[in-house]
Formats: sequence, C-alpha cells, structure tokens
Amino acid sequence: MTVQSLPEARDLSHHLNDLARNRFPSPLKDIFRQMQRPGIISMAGGLPHPSLFPFVDASVSVYPPNGDLSGPIPPVSDRMTLNFQKYPSSKGTVDLSTILQYGSCEGLFPLREWVRKYTLDVYQPAYSNFEILLHEGNTSAWTKVVRLLCEPGDMILCEEFTFPSAMAVWVPLGCKAVPIKLDGQGMRADHLEKVLANWETSHPGLKRPHVMYVVPVGSNPTGSTMQAERRKAIYEICARYDIIIAEDDPYTTLQFPEFDLSAPAAEVVHQSGEDFAKSLVPSFLHYDRDGRVIRLESFSKVISPGARLGYFVCNPLFAERLLRATEVESQTPSGWSQGIIYSLLEAWGQAGYLSWLSRLRDVYQSRRDGLCAAIAQSFTALPARDYAAGVEGAEGIALYHAGTDPKSIKPDQRPVATFVPPTGGMFLWLSFSLSLAPRFRELVAQGVEDPEKQFMDEFWQALAENLVLLTPGSYYVPWEGKDKITTGARGAAREIGYLRFAFSYEDPDVMAEGIKRMQQVVSKMFD
Amino acid sequence: MTVQSLPEARDLSHHLNDLARNRFPSPLKDIFRQMQRPGIISMAGGLPHPSLFPFVDASVSVYPPNGDLSGPIPPVSDRMTLNFQKYPSSKGTVDLSTILQYGSCEGLFPLREWVRKYTLDVYQPAYSNFEILLHEGNTSAWTKVVRLLCEPGDMILCEEFTFPSAMAVWVPLGCKAVPIKLDGQGMRADHLEKVLANWETSHPGLKRPHVMYVVPVGSNPTGSTMQAERRKAIYEICARYDIIIAEDDPYTTLQFPEFDLSAPAAEVVHQSGEDFAKSLVPSFLHYDRDGRVIRLESFSKVISPGARLGYFVCNPLFAERLLRATEVESQTPSGWSQGIIYSLLEAWGQAGYLSWLSRLRDVYQSRRDGLCAAIAQSFTALPARDYAAGVEGAEGIALYHAGTDPKSIKPDQRPVATFVPPTGGMFLWLSFSLSLAPRFRELVAQGVEDPEKQFMDEFWQALAENLVLLTPGSYYVPWEGKDKITTGARGAAREIGYLRFAFSYEDPDVMAEGIKRMQQVVSKMFD
Repeated sequence: MTVQSLPEARDLSHHLNDLARNRFPSPLKDIFRQMQRPGIISMAGGLPHPSLFPFVDASVSVYPPNGDLSGPIPPVSDRMTLNFQKYPSSKGTVDLSTILQYGSCEGLFPLREWVRKYTLDVYQPAYSNFEILLHEGNTSAWTKVVRLLCEPGDMILCEEFTFPSAMAVWVPLGCKAVPIKLDGQGMRADHLEKVLANWETSHPGLKRPHVMYVVPVGSNPTGSTMQAERRKAIYEICARYDIIIAEDDPYTTLQFPEFDLSAPAAEVVHQSGEDFAKSLVPSFLHYDRDGRVIRLESFSKVISPGARLGYFVCNPLFAERLLRATEVESQTPSGWSQGIIYSLLEAWGQAGYLSWLSRLRDVYQSRRDGLCAAIAQSFTALPARDYAAGVEGAEGIALYHAGTDPKSIKPDQRPVATFVPPTGGMFLWLSFSLSLAPRFRELVAQGVEDPEKQFMDEFWQALAENLVLLTPGSYYVPWEGKDKITTGARGAAREIGYLRFAFSYEDPDVMAEGIKRMQQVVSKMFD
Repeated sequence: MTVQSLPEARDLSHHLNDLARNRFPSPLKDIFRQMQRPGIISMAGGLPHPSLFPFVDASVSVYPPNGDLSGPIPPVSDRMTLNFQKYPSSKGTVDLSTILQYGSCEGLFPLREWVRKYTLDVYQPAYSNFEILLHEGNTSAWTKVVRLLCEPGDMILCEEFTFPSAMAVWVPLGCKAVPIKLDGQGMRADHLEKVLANWETSHPGLKRPHVMYVVPVGSNPTGSTMQAERRKAIYEICARYDIIIAEDDPYTTLQFPEFDLSAPAAEVVHQSGEDFAKSLVPSFLHYDRDGRVIRLESFSKVISPGARLGYFVCNPLFAERLLRATEVESQTPSGWSQGIIYSLLEAWGQAGYLSWLSRLRDVYQSRRDGLCAAIAQSFTALPARDYAAGVEGAEGIALYHAGTDPKSIKPDQRPVATFVPPTGGMFLWLSFSLSLAPRFRELVAQGVEDPEKQFMDEFWQALAENLVLLTPGSYYVPWEGKDKITTGARGAAREIGYLRFAFSYEDPDVMAEGIKRMQQVVSKMFD
C-alpha cells in the first residue's frame, strides 16, 4: 500500500479554539516567495551574517548504533564522529551557518524528511497527507496543543491517573479533567464509551469533551501499555464522538514483554532493529483515517532530554495553525539540537536507529525486571489471580509481608500491596491496601476529611526519613475542580494509596537497597 | 555602591493576569529538598541515566574574543576550543551528562551566575533582588510576558511602528495597541504622558494600559535608540501610571554613534571592551527602583540566533511566576545551547565578551555606514534641517532625485524621501513623500479607501520586479482593531509611506547595488 492510495484527513477545523482561529496568516509569505528569484538582492530579512557567529567548527563523538549500552564507553576506534563546518563543504551537509541562523519554524528540512520516512515505515499512518513539525519536546508540544484546541472551561478526557505537568497547562485556564478508569492496559474503552454516552445526563449543560490526552505506552505513572485491540476500540469511540486524540508518546519504543514472576532473573531477549520495529504496538496514527490524532513524539527518552527536541505528526490544518503559533511564540527548536540529532540519525541510518532503540529497550527492560524482582523478593509475592478477593481492580502481582508462607494465605486475604509490572516506559505504580495500616484505621475512626491522602502523606514522609524517595500517588490525580479534591469527593476507590517508582535512573543494586528500606517501613506501618 | 545597599523591588503582584495567578505551586518542592539528603535513594524522578545518552564527547572551535571579524576564519592556532566530556572531569566543568539531562527550569546555574555578574557590572540595576531566568530567545520570552500580564482585550503601549511578531502574540487574544508617537530617539515621552493623562476622556470605559512593549536600542523597524534622558522621562511616567515596561533589547550592544553625512566613509573608531561597556546607553533597569522592568535579552544577534537562548532580568515575583509557567510549558532551553554558550562565555571571560561585542558593533556600524552612504550617493542628500518645510516629523537626511543641484532646492521643496540614520540594530527606515508620485495622486483622485497602503503595495511590487526586496512599512503598523486599519482611520500621517532596509546580511557592495535598483524605481515613480 502506498501513501498515495490512502484517504486524506477530514476537515476538523471546528475543533480549533478562538485563539488558533484568530491567528494572522504570516505576512512574510510574499517575501519568502520573492526570495527564491534568481538575482534578487534581499534587504528584507533581519538575519545576522553567519561570518559573525563565533563558531568555526564542531565535532561530537557518539556511540555506534549497535554499541553495548551496559558496558563502558566505547573506545575511540569504535565511536562515530559527527562533524560540522561553518560553511557547507558539500551539498546536503548540515553546516553551522545554517543551523545557527534563524531557520524555518517547521524545523530543519532534512530532519523533518528523515522523520517523515521513519513515521511512514514504522507507524504506517492511515491517511496520506500527514505533516511533520519539529517542536521543543513534548512539554512544549502539549502546551501548543492546548492552545490550539482548548477553550477556558473545557473538559479534557484523560487517564484516571495522569501526568501532572500535562494538567498544569490547562488547570489555570479553568479546564477540568474527565478521568477514564484504567486497567492493566491503561484507559478502558468501556468506561470511555459510558462516560460519553451518558454525558448529557451526567453533566447537564456542560460541553462534551472534544480532546483526549493519553500516554499510551509506559503510561506515567502506571507503566501500562495499550495494546492494538484496545487502541482500535478507543479510536472508534473517539471517531464516533468526534474527539481529538493527543497521543503523548515519549516512551513509545520502550515497550516490554510481560514480567514473568516465575523467572524474575530471565535474560532479556534481544531483537534485531527490524524485528524490534515489527514488535511495537501500533501508534494511534495507524488507525487514524480521519486525521484526528496529534502524535507528540520526543527524542528526550531515547537520545537525551536536554536536547529539547521532538516532533508532531498531525493533519495539515492543525500543522498550519501550530506553525502560525510557533512562528510568533517560539520560532524553532535549538539549531544545535536539530543539527546534532539530525547528524546522529543520518550517521546511524534508520536501521541503525532502530538497532539503538532495541538495545536501549533492553536496558530499560532489564531495569524493569530488576525492580520487579527486588519488590517480589522483599515481600511474599503471588500472581494476583491466586487470591480471590483483593483490592478493587487489582491484577498483576499481590504482595504480602516478607516471610508470609504462601500456603497460609487465605483466599480472601487482602495483600498489603499490588502492582501490575510495567510493560513500557520508566515507572512502576504500587497500590497499598490502607485498611491494613493501624494508623489509617485510626484516621478513619477520627473522621478526618481525606484519610487516604493524609495517611499517604505520613507514609511518604516515613519513607523519606528512611532515605528512600518515591513520588506520591496524589500528584497524578486528575484535577476535576475545587469541589472534587478529596478521595471521597472524587468518587475514587477508597482505602487505597499509591506510590510511583522510577526505574530509569538509579543503579539496579541501589534500587534493590531502596526497596529493602521501603519494605522495612511497610512492615512497621501495615499489619 | 553595592547591590545590598539598593532597595528591594516593590510588590507588583496586582499586574499578574488570572492565568499567572492560577498556576499551581510546584508539588515537586518537597521532593527536591529531600533529594539533597546524604544517602537518600531516589526513585522519584523519571530521569534517563546519562550512560544511555549516545554522546561521548564534543568539541567546538571558536573565534578568540579579539579576532578580526571582517577577515578570513582564524587559523587553527588562533582559535579557542570548547571541550565537553560525558562525565565531569573536574569540579565546575560543564559535562554532557549534565547539559543533556533534564535540568533546572531556571537555566544552567553557572550560566545564570555568569549573566548575573554581567548584568550587575554592565547594567547596574537600581534595585537589589533582581532575578535571572534563561529563556529560549526573545520571541518566546515576550510570549511568556504576555501570558504573565495581559488579559484578553488589554490595551498595550508600544511604539508607533513596532515589531509585528510581538503583536502577533497578543492580537489573537483580542488585545489592541496604543501606539505612541516616535522621533529620532524612539518613543516620545510627551506623547506618552498625553495619552495616559487623557486616557479616561479619550477611552471612556476602557482599562488604562498597564504594559508597555518597547525595543529601545535599534528599534525594529526604525533603527532608533533611546538615550538616557528620554529613558528617565519614560520610566518616571511609567512609575507614575504604574506601567510594566517590557524592554525587548536584542540589539542592546549594537549601538552606533550618529552617521556623519559629511564624512560617509569615515573609519569606525574601535573601543576597548571596557570603554565600550561604559559607552552603552543605560538599560531601563538602571532607573528601575520599583522592579517594573522586565528585561528581555538574547544571544541571537550577538552570538547566533539558532541557539534560541536569552535571559530575563526581572523582579523575584515575576520570575517565580514565569518559572512556574516555564516548568509546565517548555522546561528549559536546549542543553546544547546552554552548555556551548556558557563554555564560550567562560572561555572568553567578561572582558573577552565585551571585546567581542565591541568588535561586532564595529562590523554592524560599518554596514550601517555603508548603507547610509549608498543611499546618500544614489540621491542628492542634505541634512534634513537644511530644508524648511518637509515631511511631518522629518529629521535626519532628506533625499532628492539624483542629479538635483542642492543649490536649486527651494526652502519649501519636499524631498522624495527622508531617513534618520540608525543609531543601533540592523534596520534603516525610509519614508517616502507620496504626494510626489503621480500614481499616488491618481489613487487619491480616484478616492480609493487607503491610497497610502495601495501605492506602497504597488511600489513594493515594482521594487521586487527590479530584483530588490525590502520589507513593507505596513507590517509594522500597530493593530488597533478592525475599525482602525486604513491610514486615515488610524489617524496616521498622510501622504507618507515606509520601507524597512536590513543592513545585517547582504555584503556591502550588494547592498549598494540594491540601493541603485531602488533609486531607479524611485526615479520612475516619483516626480
């Protein structure tokens, strides 16, 4: 199937907000067209002359795409070198006089072309005229999407636990979350359908949501990954209810097979770059016949966050409005970042990049395995299906206090905690059965307003005092307005508290020590 | 005088808009505090491990600060080299594992400290507790200021001709410009005072402006620079009427002495870095006892635009709210840009940077001189004071058709064009006497709605057809709303049209050829 045989995106202009509609067309178009004329002398653009940039040349030495990421830094002979000259030394090279000058607000042309081919080959979008626009990382990209689509007071569909910085963009606009319940694959299609089908009766007078924010791979904080069938189902619902899907996918290539509790130390199975690409869960783009998906992809997690570089894939109308905003609000991502990452990708080639991504995935998978194993070993861990009446929605792995004999566990015995081993990303989400904690029961007996929140604050503090630092689950609770702050008022599951564990940064043995410290606090605070 | 002896900024919190007020305090503060504790194991932050960045080391070779900017690229032996290692090789070095990681949203600490000292030494602010915050260039910075201070529908004070991208940020919010009349030094204090003093009667029911946008050095498009006395006067008016001044100052160190028409080929007098710093017109910061100035400074024009890097200097309250926005909307400028520019500044030292800036100024001054001389030589040029009744507000240099004998010019004879030679920046602003153009008189006789605009469009087109590309003056007309679009409706001076010439990019002999082409079109279209 060629891209030409695919349909074009539908007209989705009715989703634009007033801000996006009211942007000027760029007055510079006439000038840009004239600048192409041979022999023209342009005193129109205020560009500094590149001879006045103090940079003469640059070189960056990098890992080969198939380098060993768990070993020492490769010796000089095994590295590749990216070289930059002040002026173009041959056609097609990226030189400093270009990348350090004002540039096209769509981003460096050859990098966009590189990414376009990668998008076609790896994601296989379902419509033909998608556009690529570079951006300064997914934080900035999501902000641009909010300013493209959301009006003050809009309701935004999101996962029941979602990324707080994403919320922090729209909360001051008076927007509110519509949290959709989760399972081990992330957002549940049945709950989404129910919320939308009953919208008019459950939210009388309120505009139905038209924007969804979702992190479908390695969801932050839950670590879940949405599989193909679920995506199809969610897409069809969004098509039916005319919803734009913002697919925030920075962890897209950090997808892991399920963790096997019976073989926690199993070797990671490496895949070739080609097999790796085939193994990836399809992006929402792959189902997007309408052009209603705005894909936010980033180099932060797979190359480096400090580059502040990523790209949009979206329909041409949204791309044009995003570009108008970008021209006047930020211009371009850093030329250093664009030039260096383009040169790296070009030096590696697409096959090399996929090989790099596959090896990188291996490292994160082995970190995921290490953290899951450390948790399982510090407690008595059983597959969650082995206990009958657990925490609401519990699946995955159930944890009992260390030393508990599995045979002594009664079918209805509540575990101290449960978790679904992450199938993507950098995070593990642990839920605790608070009714097993005497202090929690005391808070409930005292009738405090939000015992879940108060107990988890104390628990977090006790963990910090024992020198293990985790992220409180409360950070990830979607903002539904001032009247829906407490666990009870939100209608959230009671007697459960959450913590997020990142397995991306600390060394595996340090993580194991951290888990031991956590277990000691748990053993003191829970029955 | 030490900084400690200065007053602190006043409380200006009443200037914040709803968006800025409603931003969350960052929930991560507790976590950051705990991360400092010795022995803590943090699984809180989702940072990738720097061993997983593909970059091993980098080096960038640069000009020495006192290099000859008009000559060829310095030989290797004369260059300086900036080196970056993956991991810190010694205390205080900037390594790739730091700059390519997620970083503080305030910007790279040592770069902020470097800039703080530079700000203190060169600008000598009038209050003690100013803050430095890095940003992604002045385009992004001004957008952040608009989102900090402006409500939809606000009226914004600006120069009578102003930078269109700055307007394009607030126009879609329904904000409107309040243009202040200009003279050869930019914004006129007397007109500002008049507009504010008469606000309630001239704009009944409309909120008085509380934000001013100004480019005080090398104003874009007019090329004017506001001298010290004028700044003091404008600042006092702003203090009296409680106005926040956004000082957009990317051309701050490109300040030139007046162009001497009687010695157009005079050598540029070079100053040492120290003398150069002393010669600069003070920033508004120097008068800012209240903390009502938000200074936007950029490395775009003096190092390279593609770095997308600059910094705010402002009061601590505004800095804190800008930081809250930055955390969730963009995070940090590119680590490559921050690291490379910091290393460059550190390698040069402050004295070296000032020396670089002084040499850079020389190059732009000689380009300014070249353009002014080329214009003067293509016409008959006289100091504007030598003709009695000219174009309204004309000063500087009056141009008559080539070959006109100066002695034949009558005291009341209108020149075909006038300009004030730029005293800063990259642009020259030429105003044409349209009543001398038969086609313009024809348009007036036909009663077309905006003859000035229509004639200038045709004139611009004729210039482009003769292969010289300039920027139409209409781009710089402040937006006052849909009912004030035509020259007449805006109450702007009649029978005048403008073009902007950039002298930053084309080679001087190419610019001279461009001016010759322009002169040929003028000679055909004007009596």
